[in-house]
Amino acid sequence: MNKAVVLLSGGLDSATTLYYARQKGFNCHCLIFDYGQRHKKEIRSAKKIADLARCEWQVVKINLPWRGSALLDKKLDIQTRRGLNIQTPADNAIPSTYVPARNIIFLSFALSCAEAIGAKAIFIGANAIDYSGYPDCRPGFFKAFVKAADSGTRTGVENKPIKILTPLINKTKSEIIKSGIKLGVPYRFTWSCYKGGNAPCGKCDSCRFRQKGFREAGLKDPIWSN
Amino acid sequence: MNKAVVLLSGGLDSATTLYYARQKGFNCHCLIFDYGQRHKKEIRSAKKIADLARCEWQVVKINLPWRGSALLDKKLDIQTRRGLNIQTPADNAIPSTYVPARNIIFLSFALSCAEAIGAKAIFIGANAIDYSGYPDCRPGFFKAFVKAADSGTRTGVENKPIKILTPLINKTKSEIIKSGIKLGVPYRFTWSCYKGGNAPCGKCDSCRFRQKGFREAGLKDPIWSN
Repeated sequence: MNKAVVLLSGGLDSATTLYYARQKGFNCHCLIFDYGQRHKKEIRSAKKIADLARCEWQVVKINLPWRGSALLDKKLDIQTRRGLNIQTPADNAIPSTYVPARNIIFLSFALSCAEAIGAKAIFIGANAIDYSGYPDCRPGFFKAFVKAADSGTRTGVENKPIKILTPLINKTKSEIIKSGIKLGVPYRFTWSCYKGGNAPCGKCDSCRFRQKGFREAGLKDPIWSN
Repeated sequence: MNKAVVLLSGGLDSATTLYYARQKGFNCHCLIFDYGQRHKKEIRSAKKIADLARCEWQVVKINLPWRGSALLDKKLDIQTRRGLNIQTPADNAIPSTYVPARNIIFLSFALSCAEAIGAKAIFIGANAIDYSGYPDCRPGFFKAFVKAADSGTRTGVENKPIKILTPLINKTKSEIIKSGIKLGVPYRFTWSCYKGGNAPCGKCDSCRFRQKGFREAGLKDPIWSN
């Protein structure tokens, strides 16, 4: 059974990705990042989801003392788009919740872990359709990162490259949810809201993409039955 | 005065790189990584060197619980090449001191820091001449990493890419030392040995490259006068 490293944030996309990887027959090793995010609650969600999927997990604690993001700094506002039209955002600006180089950092750790444990693949639930416009969620970035990984690692230069797989990259949120329901993803335990409150705020980008996804899928979000 | 992030390990190459960047007029912000390396002593050296250069520094603590390297795991032997012919290694095998994806991780943090503090460049003292054969020290890797960085960051997509500079990449160790002496690099406070003893072991790759460098430069290594 091939091993895979799965980046698990505790949100809807990464949980679906984990169940997808498991269904593809991978023995999944989940990495959960504690990077000083406001919504620490997602870490508890991630552990719960990995446990329910009966997969190993590790929490990697990261210190980004320079911050530079509303997700790391409570003094900054979590922007929401005005006149939200998510699929074709009115403005292309990258929002305040962008964390500098976040996916590059996460993938670098995943690569290190994959080499050390002998995993053949890394799964990341990035999505470039119903998303906040972060540059490190787009196909071009992953393509470029694969090349850097292949030229900078032992496995890469020995011609046994580690695959970086983004199965959700071109799906809409409702397509992700519908496929996840079939895979048995326990969405009631996932956490999406950028603010770390008791209940989702319903206003941040992440909440709104989630609402839109369930609405378009014609389903009720089970998080509200918690 | 443009800001730069400088990766500072406390060894000879990174110290020279810091002094080079400073001489080029950059306001240098040093990142020092505590990643569980055996030779923790280099962290003390790095702080000392940054202080002597009157530059800001930050220690970034990283947890690589999967290890996979003799530099992280005292149970593994620190290999030394047999019949050492460093410039044209008899075997091309990557040694046991290779740390999976180390420079990818370091550069990712540097990129995050550079974006957050508004630095225009990242300096790394990688060298692909008198080196241990690590794939993440070669020019091809840096070229590929730059592309990933440009496509995955705000600064990259906004067409204000952060430069990644490797001024020592094609220099021999003796050339590095000779230029460093001119720049006033305090080599007596640098630390190269992979083993964390009181004095350098004189046998590991890192010690041997250092000895070779000073010998070929016709200079005495000031570390022995400490």
